[in-house]
Amino acid sequence: MGTQHPDSNKPLWGGRFTDSPSGRMQAFGASLPVDWRLWRQDIAGSKAHANMLAQQGVLTAADAEAICAGLELIAGRIEAGEFGFDVADEDIHMAIERALTAEIGEAGGRLHTGRSRNDQVACDTRLYAHERAADLMFKLFDCRLAILDVAIEALKDDVILPGYTHLQKAQPVLLTHHLLAWYWMLARDTIRMLAAHNAANASPLGAAALAGTSYPLDRQFTASALGFSEVIPNSLDAVSDRDYLLDLVYACATTMLHLSRICEELVLWSSDEFGFITLSDSFATGSSIMPQKKNPDFAELVRGKSGRVIGDLTALMVTLKGLPLAYNKDLQEDKEGAFDAIDTLALSLEAVQGMIATMQINADRMLAAAQGGYMAATDLADYLVGKGVAFREAHAIVGKLVGELEAQGRTLQQLTLEELQAASPAFAADALDAVDIANVVARRNTFGGTAHEQVARQLKQAMDTQNEHQEQLRLAYPQLAEYQARLRVIK
Amino acid sequence: MGTQHPDSNKPLWGGRFTDSPSGRMQAFGASLPVDWRLWRQDIAGSKAHANMLAQQGVLTAADAEAICAGLELIAGRIEAGEFGFDVADEDIHMAIERALTAEIGEAGGRLHTGRSRNDQVACDTRLYAHERAADLMFKLFDCRLAILDVAIEALKDDVILPGYTHLQKAQPVLLTHHLLAWYWMLARDTIRMLAAHNAANASPLGAAALAGTSYPLDRQFTASALGFSEVIPNSLDAVSDRDYLLDLVYACATTMLHLSRICEELVLWSSDEFGFITLSDSFATGSSIMPQKKNPDFAELVRGKSGRVIGDLTALMVTLKGLPLAYNKDLQEDKEGAFDAIDTLALSLEAVQGMIATMQINADRMLAAAQGGYMAATDLADYLVGKGVAFREAHAIVGKLVGELEAQGRTLQQLTLEELQAASPAFAADALDAVDIANVVARRNTFGGTAHEQVARQLKQAMDTQNEHQEQLRLAYPQLAEYQARLRVIK
Amino acid sequence: MGTQHPDSNKPLWGGRFTDSPSGRMQAFGASLPVDWRLWRQDIAGSKAHANMLAQQGVLTAADAEAICAGLELIAGRIEAGEFGFDVADEDIHMAIERALTAEIGEAGGRLHTGRSRNDQVACDTRLYAHERAADLMFKLFDCRLAILDVAIEALKDDVILPGYTHLQKAQPVLLTHHLLAWYWMLARDTIRMLAAHNAANASPLGAAALAGTSYPLDRQFTASALGFSEVIPNSLDAVSDRDYLLDLVYACATTMLHLSRICEELVLWSSDEFGFITLSDSFATGSSIMPQKKNPDFAELVRGKSGRVIGDLTALMVTLKGLPLAYNKDLQEDKEGAFDAIDTLALSLEAVQGMIATMQINADRMLAAAQGGYMAATDLADYLVGKGVAFREAHAIVGKLVGELEAQGRTLQQLTLEELQAASPAFAADALDAVDIANVVARRNTFGGTAHEQVARQLKQAMDTQNEHQEQLRLAYPQLAEYQARLRVIK
Amino acid sequence: MGTQHPDSNKPLWGGRFTDSPSGRMQAFGASLPVDWRLWRQDIAGSKAHANMLAQQGVLTAADAEAICAGLELIAGRIEAGEFGFDVADEDIHMAIERALTAEIGEAGGRLHTGRSRNDQVACDTRLYAHERAADLMFKLFDCRLAILDVAIEALKDDVILPGYTHLQKAQPVLLTHHLLAWYWMLARDTIRMLAAHNAANASPLGAAALAGTSYPLDRQFTASALGFSEVIPNSLDAVSDRDYLLDLVYACATTMLHLSRICEELVLWSSDEFGFITLSDSFATGSSIMPQKKNPDFAELVRGKSGRVIGDLTALMVTLKGLPLAYNKDLQEDKEGAFDAIDTLALSLEAVQGMIATMQINADRMLAAAQGGYMAATDLADYLVGKGVAFREAHAIVGKLVGELEAQGRTLQQLTLEELQAASPAFAADALDAVDIANVVARRNTFGGTAHEQVARQLKQAMDTQNEHQEQLRLAYPQLAEYQARLRVIK
Repeated sequence: MGTQHPDSNKPLWGGRFTDSPSGRMQAFGASLPVDWRLWRQDIAGSKAHANMLAQQGVLTAADAEAICAGLELIAGRIEAGEFGFDVADEDIHMAIERALTAEIGEAGGRLHTGRSRNDQVACDTRLYAHERAADLMFKLFDCRLAILDVAIEALKDDVILPGYTHLQKAQPVLLTHHLLAWYWMLARDTIRMLAAHNAANASPLGAAALAGTSYPLDRQFTASALGFSEVIPNSLDAVSDRDYLLDLVYACATTMLHLSRICEELVLWSSDEFGFITLSDSFATGSSIMPQKKNPDFAELVRGKSGRVIGDLTALMVTLKGLPLAYNKDLQEDKEGAFDAIDTLALSLEAVQGMIATMQINADRMLAAAQGGYMAATDLADYLVGKGVAFREAHAIVGKLVGELEAQGRTLQQLTLEELQAASPAFAADALDAVDIANVVARRNTFGGTAHEQVARQLKQAMDTQNEHQEQLRLAYPQLAEYQARLRVIK
Repeated sequence: MGTQHPDSNKPLWGGRFTDSPSGRMQAFGASLPVDWRLWRQDIAGSKAHANMLAQQGVLTAADAEAICAGLELIAGRIEAGEFGFDVADEDIHMAIERALTAEIGEAGGRLHTGRSRNDQVACDTRLYAHERAADLMFKLFDCRLAILDVAIEALKDDVILPGYTHLQKAQPVLLTHHLLAWYWMLARDTIRMLAAHNAANASPLGAAALAGTSYPLDRQFTASALGFSEVIPNSLDAVSDRDYLLDLVYACATTMLHLSRICEELVLWSSDEFGFITLSDSFATGSSIMPQKKNPDFAELVRGKSGRVIGDLTALMVTLKGLPLAYNKDLQEDKEGAFDAIDTLALSLEAVQGMIATMQINADRMLAAAQGGYMAATDLADYLVGKGVAFREAHAIVGKLVGELEAQGRTLQQLTLEELQAASPAFAADALDAVDIANVVARRNTFGGTAHEQVARQLKQAMDTQNEHQEQLRLAYPQLAEYQARLRVIK
Repeated sequence: MGTQHPDSNKPLWGGRFTDSPSGRMQAFGASLPVDWRLWRQDIAGSKAHANMLAQQGVLTAADAEAICAGLELIAGRIEAGEFGFDVADEDIHMAIERALTAEIGEAGGRLHTGRSRNDQVACDTRLYAHERAADLMFKLFDCRLAILDVAIEALKDDVILPGYTHLQKAQPVLLTHHLLAWYWMLARDTIRMLAAHNAANASPLGAAALAGTSYPLDRQFTASALGFSEVIPNSLDAVSDRDYLLDLVYACATTMLHLSRICEELVLWSSDEFGFITLSDSFATGSSIMPQKKNPDFAELVRGKSGRVIGDLTALMVTLKGLPLAYNKDLQEDKEGAFDAIDTLALSLEAVQGMIATMQINADRMLAAAQGGYMAATDLADYLVGKGVAFREAHAIVGKLVGELEAQGRTLQQLTLEELQAASPAFAADALDAVDIANVVARRNTFGGTAHEQVARQLKQAMDTQNEHQEQLRLAYPQLAEYQARLRVIK
Repeated sequence: MGTQHPDSNKPLWGGRFTDSPSGRMQAFGASLPVDWRLWRQDIAGSKAHANMLAQQGVLTAADAEAICAGLELIAGRIEAGEFGFDVADEDIHMAIERALTAEIGEAGGRLHTGRSRNDQVACDTRLYAHERAADLMFKLFDCRLAILDVAIEALKDDVILPGYTHLQKAQPVLLTHHLLAWYWMLARDTIRMLAAHNAANASPLGAAALAGTSYPLDRQFTASALGFSEVIPNSLDAVSDRDYLLDLVYACATTMLHLSRICEELVLWSSDEFGFITLSDSFATGSSIMPQKKNPDFAELVRGKSGRVIGDLTALMVTLKGLPLAYNKDLQEDKEGAFDAIDTLALSLEAVQGMIATMQINADRMLAAAQGGYMAATDLADYLVGKGVAFREAHAIVGKLVGELEAQGRTLQQLTLEELQAASPAFAADALDAVDIANVVARRNTFGGTAHEQVARQLKQAMDTQNEHQEQLRLAYPQLAEYQARLRVIK
């Protein structure tokens, strides 16, 4: 099998489980089917460790060089899909070490000096978590940008749709206003993802099995070489802490929750009953039998997948509950759920970004819906109050009008001035403006409200936040040109 | 890649995901990487459907024959690892249908008459769940038998260990008594697993997309052909119900909880501090550095994996929450967690069965521990009460004795008659019997208590239950000779 | 404060926590605020125990009589709200025992002979769980009956509404058919509740602290006196098993999931966009500001509360994970979540029953919606196939027609024969029947399908199931006349 | 009933639920039994709103004054336990508004101008969450200080205990080192709690029902008056966002996980088998029957309660899943679980702090245990390697020695020089130092290792972190003198 994208949860390795009891038990204990994807981090960690050992005089320079060269060779082989993974190796660390020793002989065995699998696996997993958290932030940025693009466009036309509470039409709002509510959810998720990113950023390497080691290691050296900003100050904690994974899975879970809320709206909006949007054909599926159907499959899948990520968080928490110090084999169960949460969120963000970027806005259907539901009733009553009618009386007058219109199947906007004046002499010609949905929107002109002016200001704030958040990541990842290229400054 | 054990969660198929956005989205929507393992059920379901269509005159006999032959050919190919799975097929149903049409031409397309993927996937998954639940019951039987074997052996020697509450020594118990407490947990899990097995046992085939079909299907025909005991009476329910998976994952979760409790004890018991058992080398791991270590890795792993199964249950529940009728794409998320729970439990049961069957009982360490902790103090006080001393006074006398012994680092069993009589003239020679740990055990002779007689009776009840539970499954699965062979009658 | 309904989670007791650290710690350890509601069960258990002790000659008949009289007096006092609960009593067992001793003197202390709080609390909780599970089954019956009533009525008029997949209109179905899909969900929940009910039905009394006792107890006596059908055969298991609570909370959780699905539909259906139902004013709330609003608050609450019950299940599982035998204080955490799940489900069932029983069906809106969405397109294509047109061609012809109608904003039912024949000469006058929504429904006439005949048969099956399930409970609870009265035979 | 501590989850109100169906439904919809504890925040919010309305000319100064005076009067009444709560008021907002109007007449009704219960409840809950998060940080500080105190003391004597992996003795460590591993867990939790604290720190007031309002509100005014550092920029988001509660419950859950790990060790350590600590009588319970018992009840309870907080997190996530914008009644379910998580953590932190502060360290038992398990074997082999023996040979020599000692029931420290030299002539007199446990500890002298020097440095870092974290909160809460007083600077 050829090389694979590291995000894929398919194994690079062709080894297969035997059906014998002992083979199954070996497979049961092995983590290789899960942790093979840490190979890059494992090789980076080993090179840093070897170079440090050489600097400290524990290894000869020649040994360190041989080790690094051997590891690079192995990396190339894995990258090219030519590495023979074998479940008998148990985990990625053993798989690489075995290959290294086969390649360069005895010196390969010396690599493990002053290191244990306990600190090694913690190191690899932290590097991986740190990197994937960054990647997820970039994907969050993409998704936020897609929302901003549609929000900017919709503001040009002041597209109006009903705002709902209890799924009942409540008050009309600008589409941009609604979209920005989505935006802020994901902006908060970015903050959480950044916290997870930072939580992973400390080096456990040198903690050895649990208590440190008698070899004169320079833990700062390996930390710096691997890009960690600090060194974990307690060796027991270094090998037993999984908080950085909890933080990462939690950030994935809240983001999935928000995506589930957005997707619920995409499903509702693309139903025949709402009809507010039409999903692009590339993000919907049809039916070979029913030609009229266009199913919002991806939105449903993302909504459904919020379950698995919440399950991943639960699983990790349960696994950690009640574990005494220091390393326990239970901790081997930390990775699969975390990887699943990461992969699921990565694809979900792409899916939501794609759906939003390509959906067609049916502004007419939105406006028509906004004119239903008598959402201007409150404003009409307020009009009367403004003309000096007591609130209670005003409310009664409008309530009666609404009742009559409902019976006739008409909207408030279809009222004539005559009808209004028949209901109350306090109504003047400008009363017709009061029920105009655009005016209802325009009147909600306090900070954070749905009036155009406020929404425009809010949009500006969102764009500033976008630039600011991106800048934070830009500064944290100066070396990654590929990432830099993905950041788009909003002006 | 060759054929794989159906229990493995590795794909049979060599297809790989591209890294292009559209490729990733295709992969996002595809369920083939998960549902390929339903191929046997899918082929069985299709054959039953084809034969039924022929009986009903919807297909010609020739078409039905061609279809069945084609499906068998494909089955052979998959079995032999020669089937080319391709993620572009989206799911196992499409993969097989495409291959069938390629093989037998136009008739392949007619197989889908009066069927939808909605009822097809429900049918396949029910067949699979039903079968795996039976398999898990057999594994539960194996594990229960392993416990019974050790329990029978331990009763011969009346092996005694401390019984704990709050992890504090409380009262001595027979090891057989303790082991039977494990047994009853797993006996209850078998009942739950049987309920899950039965829950899957109803045919959704013929529900079509959601409302039934205008073709004259005979749903009873397909149900019988597939071994279902009944037909689901509501087509909407048939395509949207996933209760049978909830029941199955729940049964897996409670069993994992019980295994986590057993494994916690295996970990404690194999610690240096307890030393009650020594795990077999095949179910423990050593350390290349520390020669003294023997780690109970498998027990820890099982305990840790209880987290993932609870997570699987949570995930499935969250996914189902709030879904309107009938089929929603969210439901595609039902399988992966369920498969994971099944696989995890299957291997965990094997691991626990193996650990118990091969562990060495350190009866001396158990007895020594039982003599510590002053667990006979209550019985000594009861002795005095029996001699007419008031309870309050008796309690005070014994409390004082315990305090003195504790200061001297001695046990109750090391008391001499002289010392006893110095403490109270009511003590006679038979007082020494009162503190004998074996006597303490023997006195707890009420139903369900730890006296030999009661435990022997309980063991008999456990063996009867074992035979009765096995008989239930034997009757339910008369056709499976391989399963029959696995049942061992306890005499 | 006066007496309270036992279902309420409000304390009967007026005691209050001090704000001192030691007071808070006492409160932290105390379970009285939670377990006070077990008072009936505790008193029943104590009476059975006292009578058994007397029969066995451990207590004098006079003592047993005094104890029973004292307990009845205390019961009366609690019932009347005149019992002074005090958190210093720690739990309900101590509260009652202290009061008993205060009332009848020394004999009160003898009640605890051969009993421990470990088996006592297990006994009380099992009695409570058993009883509440029965109550929940009765509430499930009420809810199922409410669905049946509406289903029976709707079948008289053959009310049709769109059936959805992916929240897209798919095929028209009878409302009765849809309602019965709800019914079967709750019928399965009843089975699970019955399993939970049975799981609680075994007596732990006599297990004492963990190992049995040296007093000559008759465990069968107390079991029978309390109505338990069997005696738990292992004393360690008796005090540490909480499976019966897991089963009960699980049954609550699946029922809440189903209610969440039903409520999601109630919310959708009562929206302006769907308009299929109008909730009764007693099960909806209005707005003092917006006179047009009617919010489906109760449906939303039930949907939201599915979260808390899933949380209760998770909590109980996490608490049990990894606990060694036998009793651990962690187990004190078993009750609060279970009680919450029970209470939540009880009220949710009442709410859903009430909403369904009182909602107004807007059959016209349903039918109008069923005529939209081109759901008859498949049948129109089938018509052509029936006339000998190739499927591919038929599909293309109908697809084109649908496209034209969509552009014109017309439905398939608005097609004239001329238009049809212009599209294909194969269309004859009966083609107009093919697109008639009632005919589309009628054609799905296989077992479990949506045709009137099938739905009527299914309704009969549902009614039979109802009677059969009720009969099971009737037989299990012959003594409870009040329960009998609540069962309504469906004819 | 009198006043209650706001932390208590007991209602202030004496109202009781009727048993009638409609009474139960009212109770079902009411949130007052849960949200009564927001009364302080509700009154503060209302005063700020009234003053703002007056400033903006929407209310007269006289009205605002009357409202504020009325609210203060009500506050006094609630504080004094003299306020008549009634479930018919539905929620705390209505309860207070009704009382206000009863008190000051019509002006009370005007308070609701430009405000909705949607933004009001969000405001109250944010204020409460913010405040409780601060309180939990103070409690975390207390607990961290208790650990530091013991850690400082233990370092003076270089108390040594076995370090475990897989619950097998692995390498000896300083007790201070082990305790600091606990410390760092809680330090990370403080960071998460601070994030939750900050997440709540934004004002939703002025968002009204969902879209803003046409009244000229000054949202910055109310935000400042209530101490919020910013104003939520989107009105839809303001009423539907519950992320700040997720963050808070998540911080509670991770802390509970850590406490469960610490408590697992307290339980193990206080068992007869380990005997490393003796819990203070005020944090343990005895047995009236078994005088020898001292149960670590509080540690078990905290461990058990980690389940409920994970359940609270699950519940909140499930409730939020798939909710469309803006306010839905499901959101009413946000508070009970959050309050429970907060209360549970607050008491758990107190319990753990108390247990740690008062436990007795049994240094002798720790040292004796550290000398068992042959933990110096590695160092002995390393000694030989240092003398030029090949690693493989050294390992074999030491392995043989360990085997012999194990058979004799002796420790490595009991070896004589003669025995060593008989095993290998490479052993010299200083070999005895190699197996000295104190030396084994001292040799692990890399950063973060267990040697005294490293642990002392780490302790200093922990103390600096303590001061730094406290300083952050000190700056955030300058106004709270009572909080300031609770901060203890570590020197």
